[in-house]
Amino acid sequence: MTGRTGRHFLHIPGPSPVPERVLRAMDRQIIDHRGPEFARLGREVLEGIRGVFRTQGPVIIYPGSGTGAWEAAIVNTLSPGDRVLMFETGHFATLWRQMAARFGIEVEFVPGDWRRGVDPAAVEARLSEDRARSIKAVMVVHNETSTGVTSRIAAIRRAIDAAGHPALFLVDTISSLASVDVRHDEWGIDVTVSGSQKGLMLPPGLGFTAISEKARAAARHNTMPRSYWDWEEMLKANASGTFPYTPATNLLWGLREAIAMLREEGLDAVFARHARLAAATRAAVEAWGLEVLCQNPDEHSPVLTAVMMPEGRGADAFRAVALERFDLSLGAGLSKLSDKIFRIGHLGETNDLTLMGALSGVEMALAASRVPHRSGGVLAAMASLGAGLDG
Amino acid sequence: MTGRTGRHFLHIPGPSPVPERVLRAMDRQIIDHRGPEFARLGREVLEGIRGVFRTQGPVIIYPGSGTGAWEAAIVNTLSPGDRVLMFETGHFATLWRQMAARFGIEVEFVPGDWRRGVDPAAVEARLSEDRARSIKAVMVVHNETSTGVTSRIAAIRRAIDAAGHPALFLVDTISSLASVDVRHDEWGIDVTVSGSQKGLMLPPGLGFTAISEKARAAARHNTMPRSYWDWEEMLKANASGTFPYTPATNLLWGLREAIAMLREEGLDAVFARHARLAAATRAAVEAWGLEVLCQNPDEHSPVLTAVMMPEGRGADAFRAVALERFDLSLGAGLSKLSDKIFRIGHLGETNDLTLMGALSGVEMALAASRVPHRSGGVLAAMASLGAGLDG
Amino acid sequence: MTGRTGRHFLHIPGPSPVPERVLRAMDRQIIDHRGPEFARLGREVLEGIRGVFRTQGPVIIYPGSGTGAWEAAIVNTLSPGDRVLMFETGHFATLWRQMAARFGIEVEFVPGDWRRGVDPAAVEARLSEDRARSIKAVMVVHNETSTGVTSRIAAIRRAIDAAGHPALFLVDTISSLASVDVRHDEWGIDVTVSGSQKGLMLPPGLGFTAISEKARAAARHNTMPRSYWDWEEMLKANASGTFPYTPATNLLWGLREAIAMLREEGLDAVFARHARLAAATRAAVEAWGLEVLCQNPDEHSPVLTAVMMPEGRGADAFRAVALERFDLSLGAGLSKLSDKIFRIGHLGETNDLTLMGALSGVEMALAASRVPHRSGGVLAAMASLGAGLDG
Amino acid sequence: MTGRTGRHFLHIPGPSPVPERVLRAMDRQIIDHRGPEFARLGREVLEGIRGVFRTQGPVIIYPGSGTGAWEAAIVNTLSPGDRVLMFETGHFATLWRQMAARFGIEVEFVPGDWRRGVDPAAVEARLSEDRARSIKAVMVVHNETSTGVTSRIAAIRRAIDAAGHPALFLVDTISSLASVDVRHDEWGIDVTVSGSQKGLMLPPGLGFTAISEKARAAARHNTMPRSYWDWEEMLKANASGTFPYTPATNLLWGLREAIAMLREEGLDAVFARHARLAAATRAAVEAWGLEVLCQNPDEHSPVLTAVMMPEGRGADAFRAVALERFDLSLGAGLSKLSDKIFRIGHLGETNDLTLMGALSGVEMALAASRVPHRSGGVLAAMASLGAGLDG
Repeated sequence: MTGRTGRHFLHIPGPSPVPERVLRAMDRQIIDHRGPEFARLGREVLEGIRGVFRTQGPVIIYPGSGTGAWEAAIVNTLSPGDRVLMFETGHFATLWRQMAARFGIEVEFVPGDWRRGVDPAAVEARLSEDRARSIKAVMVVHNETSTGVTSRIAAIRRAIDAAGHPALFLVDTISSLASVDVRHDEWGIDVTVSGSQKGLMLPPGLGFTAISEKARAAARHNTMPRSYWDWEEMLKANASGTFPYTPATNLLWGLREAIAMLREEGLDAVFARHARLAAATRAAVEAWGLEVLCQNPDEHSPVLTAVMMPEGRGADAFRAVALERFDLSLGAGLSKLSDKIFRIGHLGETNDLTLMGALSGVEMALAASRVPHRSGGVLAAMASLGAGLDG
Repeated sequence: MTGRTGRHFLHIPGPSPVPERVLRAMDRQIIDHRGPEFARLGREVLEGIRGVFRTQGPVIIYPGSGTGAWEAAIVNTLSPGDRVLMFETGHFATLWRQMAARFGIEVEFVPGDWRRGVDPAAVEARLSEDRARSIKAVMVVHNETSTGVTSRIAAIRRAIDAAGHPALFLVDTISSLASVDVRHDEWGIDVTVSGSQKGLMLPPGLGFTAISEKARAAARHNTMPRSYWDWEEMLKANASGTFPYTPATNLLWGLREAIAMLREEGLDAVFARHARLAAATRAAVEAWGLEVLCQNPDEHSPVLTAVMMPEGRGADAFRAVALERFDLSLGAGLSKLSDKIFRIGHLGETNDLTLMGALSGVEMALAASRVPHRSGGVLAAMASLGAGLDG
Repeated sequence: MTGRTGRHFLHIPGPSPVPERVLRAMDRQIIDHRGPEFARLGREVLEGIRGVFRTQGPVIIYPGSGTGAWEAAIVNTLSPGDRVLMFETGHFATLWRQMAARFGIEVEFVPGDWRRGVDPAAVEARLSEDRARSIKAVMVVHNETSTGVTSRIAAIRRAIDAAGHPALFLVDTISSLASVDVRHDEWGIDVTVSGSQKGLMLPPGLGFTAISEKARAAARHNTMPRSYWDWEEMLKANASGTFPYTPATNLLWGLREAIAMLREEGLDAVFARHARLAAATRAAVEAWGLEVLCQNPDEHSPVLTAVMMPEGRGADAFRAVALERFDLSLGAGLSKLSDKIFRIGHLGETNDLTLMGALSGVEMALAASRVPHRSGGVLAAMASLGAGLDG
Repeated sequence: MTGRTGRHFLHIPGPSPVPERVLRAMDRQIIDHRGPEFARLGREVLEGIRGVFRTQGPVIIYPGSGTGAWEAAIVNTLSPGDRVLMFETGHFATLWRQMAARFGIEVEFVPGDWRRGVDPAAVEARLSEDRARSIKAVMVVHNETSTGVTSRIAAIRRAIDAAGHPALFLVDTISSLASVDVRHDEWGIDVTVSGSQKGLMLPPGLGFTAISEKARAAARHNTMPRSYWDWEEMLKANASGTFPYTPATNLLWGLREAIAMLREEGLDAVFARHARLAAATRAAVEAWGLEVLCQNPDEHSPVLTAVMMPEGRGADAFRAVALERFDLSLGAGLSKLSDKIFRIGHLGETNDLTLMGALSGVEMALAASRVPHRSGGVLAAMASLGAGLDG
């Protein structure tokens, strides 16, 4: 093994690398979570996080993972027996569906091939058919971390509106928030679910739900038993910058710093950077003669690129070479894509040269693994990045 | 304000000060939670944490707070309509009861005056009466953080056994674990609930449940809807050192270091240290002529000491003086004890001189606030500590 | 050994505890010391440090220790054969004299008993006698770290002026800067020597010389061979925020933070705090029935207090008990005071409760060592601190 | 500017990137430098650093820069009027010569073109001519950081021996130690000078001199005035793990960690890694059609590669583009090479993908600056790295 000196290249689609500034912000002594210094911190992050979700309304911050925030979205707004509309866009959509089922939700799961996102026309068609308005919620994964496909949330919103359907709109932005544009208010999302360890560039350990007035009203009447994830006590405590149970203070300090960094760069610049890096990655993949999993050019993920292995070659052996020889972590294929794809993360604390290091590692690992490919992906990526700069 | 230079004295009963070693262990770049390095970390902490709970069985580690671990204990083992026996030992017992009620559990809540712990005789009496064995679980808070009273878990276990009752035994050790002896296996506890931010000396953000075979069997038949807190998928993933959803990696690094520190000092030495500091604190309180809230000498908490304010004097104004003048954070009285008591934490990363600094701060703040008291508490504390050393 | 859990109490008279903010500021990746980001840092600290020395003129920052800055003062301004006037105020004055002698300087060393500072009248008398103006420099240690005696620099300046003597005035403020008032310009100091690890609250590794126009002019004509410590190339590079050889970048980040902290608290408040803590310490010593080494009430050090052991008792055995039992580091007696005194540092990142912790440790260690003393020093200290607050 | 998000690519030839482990090791509270914990640290680093210099003899560790260690080598072994033989290999050799001249040393400076190292034959010839043995020392810069040329120290040793000349052999390994093989004992070096911020992967702030018995004997008779840099008191204190003046404790913690890292990888593996990265860099330069400054294939530096700009193109404008667009720091040309070359550092905490990121940045910056070149340097570098792996 030659690669284990120097910096690890973490190019899984999250957790993403944590900036030194964020690590440093968290590296400090704990304080009284009921004292005045904490209250200032609490108010600051509760206010600041709204800007990231592009909402005027409340955002709940949980100690927990993004999976917990999924659960929060479900148990606050849905009851056993409720019907919801979901879409098989990949592994995480499937997991969210399983979770809903565990809570007794009846999920209508529109099948998919894991190579494209949610079709807005299908949403409109299905909701229009639902004359009885029996569908309580439409639940969509914005960026499928397992496939590198980003569904078009604004278009889906328009589809719901076109159908004139009152369903709640619940969107998982765990791997898109702060990397891809998310507009909670403008897009009429009722619950936007997210986590700390992707675009927010924090370690894992915080879950988020941004909630609309409509979602909050639904929660008030919802009888699903719940406590930890319940919104109302959270909102009551949050009014004074505190939390109903012990918050993950050090992660909140990190969150404060991450929000400051996003503001300094500017959210739109952040999104443009992700798009540039993603385009360069696809250019490399194409130059290698490999295939990107996502088949809809309008849905390529700015966060990660899933690459299909040539027939007969295992992705996991290739990834092991990348890790062993070049200290490069790539994402694995999940469930039905297991061993069939590898995923290149290009999100968060990433820039042109970090990406070029990673793509060089992929190209060298392809060669070292004798995976059939053309060389020169890195040149194509550089050309793409250069064009991006001049454009 | 004169006190805000130099180190803050955090003497609330948790979160407790985080050792520099633990902070440093967490201050590092994130890694792939599906890669081999993480698997080693996962296995190491999953194994190491058992020793802290003194169990051979599994301990589940959640990204979340201790409150979440409470919920895990409930939703895994109990179903709506189940009856449980709980005891009003203080604020946290009351909160846990409210949580149970939210999940449809019928709680028989034995009233208490918040100045003593659970009476083992009462447990035996009540369970003996329950001929129908309708009580599904006995739920006890080991160390009541709101009152400084530590219930005697081993004696309660004996009481359950004396009654020959099959109820599950669920114990909240959030503020006792790694400060006071907790013996999950030996005491026949079925679910031991805990959190990261007290005796484990970590920042908040992890919840724990140690589970017995009996608890796990109960969970398999339990129909309460659950997902995030569900034990079975956790245990399946834990077998290979991984987790079913993204774990709070940086806190796990901290946990590894904290476990190492506890091993180096030795759990019994840790408990003896807490007992010494608590005795010195009570000596100071007595010398000041103030009253300790806990009325049963066998139940004084080694973790914190709750002190009653003289009649007519508000505790919160006093605490504000301690904070403003001496940069000393003391715990507030909660709910019905609000403004009536203050709490001195002496847990975790604490030693003789840290305590003496804190007690000096209390004595000076009493003087500065003109709270009626005798001076010399610090002398009594020093005498107690000195005796402890020679003994 | 019971004391080694929890925070170490570092109460030597420097290095002093480093604030978490300063540690965090230094804990970051290195940058190009010839690039624009460094130039901003360089300019900022070179400008900011002037305020701490209270000078409009240049301050040189060396990678090195305070001892190196002593050498810089000598080799830039003095030549072999030059005569200087120095005073035996303690260990460090003696060391500085030895250093001067190594460079061929003829030192007239006024004897002293290590219990009082430099007598301004003696300075005036000696300089007045020096009709030939053969004395090239007066060299004084401001705060004798070995004795806890602080010489009165302003009065010595007046004495030099009263004698109408043109000697350079070189002052060692290694342990006084940023703890005791130092006024380079107002007091007409020609070279003010200092270091990073005392009042500046940084780790050791930086030495400083603030220099007057007169000192700089003397350096231009001085023939002593020198390179590393030479001022001129430093000043040339400093003009653009850079350094002629690789600077200790991470310590400079720490310095920037430390300067910010001193500004936030305010230098005068910093000095008042040190004076308060010193008074409380002396109150404790007096109450214990022990003797403070410093015999002149006008020269008590705000930085440290040296305490004489009762006849026949070794200070080092006592300090060993303080360290072993209470994890408290006290300063040793140096050279002729070896084993006769211990020194309590109360400088830098220190506050009322840190001091009370330390004094409690001293009192308990006195008891544990069976050193004859009266108990109650901590009460006297608290009374002193309380009076200080009301005053 | 697009590049300033994500990690900075620091590819100057030192200071080199500091590993997270080393930063973390330094990020801790200061301790008593006269206490037992420090003595353990002191002994450990004083012992451990010998292995890095490959010597059984003492290595002095100074708070200071490598420039200070140069001065230490001179003032301990040489006296005003002594003659020494030096070689104009580049900027740093020239600076060292200037320093020697400041101390009254008569330097015979063999001219050079900055494109090759010291010629062993010239050394032998010159020393053989010196029948009077008037040359007191031969002083050589091992790795010229300004040019990327590494002189062959073992061959120069043989040349000295062939001439049967008793001159001391002083070698500057500031930018070679722990990156290129240095064998203090085997190569009969008398003073090996080094610093912390290159191959040792520490921040700047420590200087080193490894000294032979012969050098130490010379120092004992040497009359050059000195104090801070004097070896004898250092060696006396070092015997018990302490230092005669306050050491830079936090950097020593970092040094302990860095030594551990070098041991884990193995010094020979470290050198092989540097050689691999250097070869890949030269392959890229050649593919771009640019010229490497170093003209002797036996003297290519494993630490850095200096690249000549095409006629008429300024290197500094190019470097500014690399910094602005790609957040890549490259080294500037120094003194007579100013604006004519840029230097690519590939030392210390560096690996294949970090280098590929940097080389991609160079290639993109060449394109963005419209510097005439052929594309494809990164492909050549990858081929070189791949070949290195298979070999």
